[in-house]
Amino acid sequence: MNNCNSIADLKRAFHIELPTIEAALQEEIAQLPPPIQPVARHVLEAGGKRLRPMLTILTARALGSSATNGLYTTAVALEFLHSATLIHDDILDNAATRRGRPAAHTVFGLTSAILAGDALLAHANAIMARTGLPALTACAAQAILATASGEIEEIAALQAPHLSQEDYLRIITGKTAYLIQAACEAGALLAHAPAAALEAARTYGLGLGIAFQLIDDALDYSGSATTLGKPHGGDLREGKRTLPLLLFLESLPAAHRHHLTDRIQRRALSEADQAVLLAQVARGGFVQATVATAQHHVEKALAALVHFPSSMERDLLHALAHFVLQREQ
Amino acid sequence: MNNCNSIADLKRAFHIELPTIEAALQEEIAQLPPPIQPVARHVLEAGGKRLRPMLTILTARALGSSATNGLYTTAVALEFLHSATLIHDDILDNAATRRGRPAAHTVFGLTSAILAGDALLAHANAIMARTGLPALTACAAQAILATASGEIEEIAALQAPHLSQEDYLRIITGKTAYLIQAACEAGALLAHAPAAALEAARTYGLGLGIAFQLIDDALDYSGSATTLGKPHGGDLREGKRTLPLLLFLESLPAAHRHHLTDRIQRRALSEADQAVLLAQVARGGFVQATVATAQHHVEKALAALVHFPSSMERDLLHALAHFVLQREQ
Repeated sequence: MNNCNSIADLKRAFHIELPTIEAALQEEIAQLPPPIQPVARHVLEAGGKRLRPMLTILTARALGSSATNGLYTTAVALEFLHSATLIHDDILDNAATRRGRPAAHTVFGLTSAILAGDALLAHANAIMARTGLPALTACAAQAILATASGEIEEIAALQAPHLSQEDYLRIITGKTAYLIQAACEAGALLAHAPAAALEAARTYGLGLGIAFQLIDDALDYSGSATTLGKPHGGDLREGKRTLPLLLFLESLPAAHRHHLTDRIQRRALSEADQAVLLAQVARGGFVQATVATAQHHVEKALAALVHFPSSMERDLLHALAHFVLQREQ
Repeated sequence: MNNCNSIADLKRAFHIELPTIEAALQEEIAQLPPPIQPVARHVLEAGGKRLRPMLTILTARALGSSATNGLYTTAVALEFLHSATLIHDDILDNAATRRGRPAAHTVFGLTSAILAGDALLAHANAIMARTGLPALTACAAQAILATASGEIEEIAALQAPHLSQEDYLRIITGKTAYLIQAACEAGALLAHAPAAALEAARTYGLGLGIAFQLIDDALDYSGSATTLGKPHGGDLREGKRTLPLLLFLESLPAAHRHHLTDRIQRRALSEADQAVLLAQVARGGFVQATVATAQHHVEKALAALVHFPSSMERDLLHALAHFVLQREQ
């Protein structure tokens, strides 16, 4: 399959599906209790790629679901879960903005933001319950548990003197990949897929999710077309050791590594120090090594797709995995 | 039925059930992701009356459930939901303590507390999913939505110039009564109760829940045996207009009412002013009027119990409603 063509197909598929996804989203927001609606609108109408709903739709269709009834609402439930984690995340990170808009807690206050997050989690579960498939509820619950757990581990890791690549992978799997896995699993469950295909959907989603976060972490050091190659450096500034930095630290002699780790953790680096460090990480091949790790997880994801019957949607999932590797924002 | 005897029976029933409830609680805590467990233990092991699990157990048995499989775990899921709302509440209220212990967010930090709350909500849903009854998931989801919505309304009400008794009732129904209703509904669903009994269980829980919060709000003005009759006055201090205060305010001439409301909202009352106001509310009969309103809701709850078959558990639910009216803490 030609990747360029298939990515064009993928963009077309998003273009076709998005209006229906947005309509389902509006319908579900309108069903929230009135005091929750403004917060939900603020967050959900700020945009976002709708990657998770799209994964649910493509997986369900690839595995033979012809039902549209419940498909879009379940897909949208995944976006509700994702948004709930973003609202709570922005509180945790004390973030001022999200997707170019002021973060919900800065507009509506801490209280409303925490409660709206809870309400979005609950509404996603209400949607799952409507399908009459308890496995869908279980799938969503496990994803939320893993996300919360991954985020708590990530915060604990800020203080840990040593962070291994395994620790890092476990953290990003929890905080990002399980929800993407759940999006694919939800599609397979809606399609009443047989066990092997269900497992393949999970494996695809997991690999895709890990790769997605790895590329995110790589872009923070490499910059992108939109930033004209200037790295954002937010992770370093926050004292987060993601894979590019971990690999760089591992390349240093122990004494230097410990000293630098300590300064990163204490956020004791000046802006100039940070700029030097960012350049060292980028030039040392550690961004490429991170992308190569992402590539490895994309390959695992693609290998799982052989258990899917051949279809247009399977090709689109294939293209999506390639797109994750190539994305620049 | 003699109320004194039946309340003794109720205490005996709690005494008998509590060890099994606690064991199920421990079993579920052990299944949480490791980073969540310390926060969950801190909150769930601080005690609490286990009112909600007990309601699930009594309702299920009263409606003919002989299954113990899934009964205690589902009952415990209600305690998880309750604890999750308490953790998030304490953040919102900036509370320093809960049940005599430091509040979770003061021990584990804001981040871990928010995430642990999310994890407890998710784990409760995972338990619901295990039962294979989507209606249970829907019931839990609706309760969380209503709780979050009620709390957001309560916060908005702090700024509202006028708060009606209807507003107040809607707020306490949301923030407290729906979860208690859900505990009873969950029991009825586990017992596969017919529609009329299911509806009766909901009505019982709703009336009980509203009465529970009304008594809470009355005790804040009247004090209790443990406080030697000294009112706590926390609601007034926080600028919250609960029913005793609303009724007092409604008894005042408009100009005086507006002036006082404004000072309460701005928290501009000195300690001495507060003491005077607390005494006025208590002596003016507004605490009794609040208890009378609670009594009215307990009667609605009791009326619903006629749709339950006669049983020991129905008698205990009857006693529990009386106990709520008589409780002093």
